[in-house]
Amino acid sequence: MAEQKATNVHWHDGEISRDDRNRMMKQRGATLWFTGLSGSGKSTIAVALEEALFERGHLSYRLDGDNIRLGINKNLGFSAEDRTENIRRIGEIAKLFVDSSVIALTSFISPYREDRDQVRALHEEAGMPFIEVFVDCALAEAEKRDPKGLYKKARAGEIKNFTGIDDPYEAPANAELHLHTDQMTLQEEVDILLKYLEDQGILNAQ
Amino acid sequence: MAEQKATNVHWHDGEISRDDRNRMMKQRGATLWFTGLSGSGKSTIAVALEEALFERGHLSYRLDGDNIRLGINKNLGFSAEDRTENIRRIGEIAKLFVDSSVIALTSFISPYREDRDQVRALHEEAGMPFIEVFVDCALAEAEKRDPKGLYKKARAGEIKNFTGIDDPYEAPANAELHLHTDQMTLQEEVDILLKYLEDQGILNAQ
Repeated sequence: MAEQKATNVHWHDGEISRDDRNRMMKQRGATLWFTGLSGSGKSTIAVALEEALFERGHLSYRLDGDNIRLGINKNLGFSAEDRTENIRRIGEIAKLFVDSSVIALTSFISPYREDRDQVRALHEEAGMPFIEVFVDCALAEAEKRDPKGLYKKARAGEIKNFTGIDDPYEAPANAELHLHTDQMTLQEEVDILLKYLEDQGILNAQ
Repeated sequence: MAEQKATNVHWHDGEISRDDRNRMMKQRGATLWFTGLSGSGKSTIAVALEEALFERGHLSYRLDGDNIRLGINKNLGFSAEDRTENIRRIGEIAKLFVDSSVIALTSFISPYREDRDQVRALHEEAGMPFIEVFVDCALAEAEKRDPKGLYKKARAGEIKNFTGIDDPYEAPANAELHLHTDQMTLQEEVDILLKYLEDQGILNAQ
């Protein structure tokens, strides 16, 4: 019996591949990376897209501050080094979801171009779709919305290094999609995303 | 238009829940945590279970050294502190997969009881199934298999702190499943796992 098992230890012939999973799920795993100022509408769009995908029978999963900063990245702060490590880990987790055939929706300010480009490179090296979505909203408008009251605190000096106030936001130069959330409705934004995913063969792939 | 969007920023009513995803996928997300000596058969079982689940139309995803140590945990070594952080991160990632409705199969030696219990606690706090599977194989048998040649190196002193040789393996006291891989066939092991998942309502859940 032991002899037989020793052989089995090397039995990896039946390994299920990413393509197998994509076929079963009738979709291709992909990362939609939403980037933009606080209050620009990243989470709102991700939530609405998740719902639209669900209604069409597609599985997506949102990675955001709630399940990342309080979980795997709870040992990271807001230093430059920690911000970079934060984005790196999120990128690696998104890749695992893509590999599993899930559509990963990430909503993080991710203000630095170099960090985002690093995540893009990780995906492209692995042959995984990476779709950068610039959630573009004028600072004045984002600050007026201020859904979490963070701009107010940043202006009062209670929060330091706040993107758009005393820390830069480096806008994407070559994002796959550019949504002007201060000029479009949520439905228009979702329609653009769905059409893009269909055109790219992410949805209804065979 | 801007006014309308400001309202939308708070629109999270349509948020898709874990239960929604589980219903769509006709399965419950769960973590199967395989623990045991190097060469005990953890990866072999995970690969075989993944295939059996796939044949039944279920989506699972394996987390193992290949996609973790070379990816998100590439900045971790093998110090006691790094080993603990390694397992913590894997546990948090498994939780994300469970939340997404995927069945996560983790294959890591994970020799320390405290680290495994920490991952269990993280799952249980979140109401997520955590199934610890003790992949139990006599050290002599695992060393005879030595599929990666690691025992040989450890005996020669080329690898330090190798589990079972000069670092302890703390066997689970209350694992949900205990597989004696030096006394069972791979098919028997897979059958036990499938039956357990059915009995627990992980598969074919509604």
